[in-house]
Amino acid sequence: MATDTESGLPSFRQVQGLIQDDTEVEIKVTTNDLLVGKLHWQDQQCLCLIDHYDQPTIIWKQSIVFLKPKP
Amino acid sequence: MATDTESGLPSFRQVQGLIQDDTEVEIKVTTNDLLVGKLHWQDQQCLCLIDHYDQPTIIWKQSIVFLKPKP
Amino acid sequence: MATDTESGLPSFRQVQGLIQDDTEVEIKVTTNDLLVGKLHWQDQQCLCLIDHYDQPTIIWKQSIVFLKPKP
Amino acid sequence: MATDTESGLPSFRQVQGLIQDDTEVEIKVTTNDLLVGKLHWQDQQCLCLIDHYDQPTIIWKQSIVFLKPKP
Amino acid sequence: MATDTESGLPSFRQVQGLIQDDTEVEIKVTTNDLLVGKLHWQDQQCLCLIDHYDQPTIIWKQSIVFLKPKP
Amino acid sequence: MATDTESGLPSFRQVQGLIQDDTEVEIKVTTNDLLVGKLHWQDQQCLCLIDHYDQPTIIWKQSIVFLKPKP
Repeated sequence: MATDTESGLPSFRQVQGLIQDDTEVEIKVTTNDLLVGKLHWQDQQCLCLIDHYDQPTIIWKQSIVFLKPKP
Repeated sequence: MATDTESGLPSFRQVQGLIQDDTEVEIKVTTNDLLVGKLHWQDQQCLCLIDHYDQPTIIWKQSIVFLKPKP
Repeated sequence: MATDTESGLPSFRQVQGLIQDDTEVEIKVTTNDLLVGKLHWQDQQCLCLIDHYDQPTIIWKQSIVFLKPKP
Repeated sequence: MATDTESGLPSFRQVQGLIQDDTEVEIKVTTNDLLVGKLHWQDQQCLCLIDHYDQPTIIWKQSIVFLKPKP
Repeated sequence: MATDTESGLPSFRQVQGLIQDDTEVEIKVTTNDLLVGKLHWQDQQCLCLIDHYDQPTIIWKQSIVFLKPKP
Repeated sequence: MATDTESGLPSFRQVQGLIQDDTEVEIKVTTNDLLVGKLHWQDQQCLCLIDHYDQPTIIWKQSIVFLKPKP
């Protein structure tokens, strides 16, 4: 299984909170795309985002620039 | 052989599921190309995608931004 | 929990100082966006920035190019 | 010497096969250049490509987006 | 504290020399910005540059492409 | 000191050969700049290039896409 090191970080737990609260988020990635949806799950490597059509997108964390709750 | 750490991650197993189900996927990479095809195999470093002409492309995971089942 | 290695670095402590002093900063990221606000928290992986509307943005450190106190 | 971890990966061995079979390949890198030629050698960090004028190019693996046999 | 591995490298010591000699440098980063100033300190993760207005900029080493003494 | 792992790689030794032979090289970096000159030294993190005006440029290896002897 995955390293505990990373899953114990505050940022990992913040994202976990956004998953549990079903918060709509915006994620900016290195290609400059802004992805919008609700977070479904995360692990050390990826985040899964569900868009408005209920389609899942697996985002590699290595490509994330920033993430924020949709205002 | 490869580290078990990574192959035990949920995201690794999700991709494994897409391989087994022969799902058509779209993969966005850092150069902004959108690659389309079916996943053939993966390891810790790469994914192999088979396109419509049955040609294989070895994609380095380090360059993946996101991956989603084709709607 | 996180590695002590990184949190013991001078740069980590400098950012910690900017958090405590409530300093307004500019952060340039790889997508060329310039994000402005006050730092709220950091860990080994992310920084949290609060903008003028009190909205939080979680920035992945991997995407930071530079950071400076707003002149 | 290099870590066995990486050289034991299927993707490493696939590239090794392309070297042995003298296959012509296309390599897309992060700068969006598409490099064409035959693979001469690889290690954990680099690939060596020989172009049509028999000139070698050492490609850092960190910059590879994808690689495919020339159709 | 930080790993000795990196601070023992020749390149780390070269940068240390530029700090001590108060050399004016140009730093090209991944966003293509060319930052100019004098180096103030470095650690394994960051470099601090002081510009002509005595303003500090903390540069993440991960974003550095090259660095040269100003001719 | 630095890890032996990397300095034992064939690619590291190839670059070492180019240094000893005073070969003129072209280095393409992630910002798309093509740097030309002779290699002066390398370590695990950086390469030093001397241009036609005898000016040194310290290039971070993380930003290298490819390197080739000038034809």
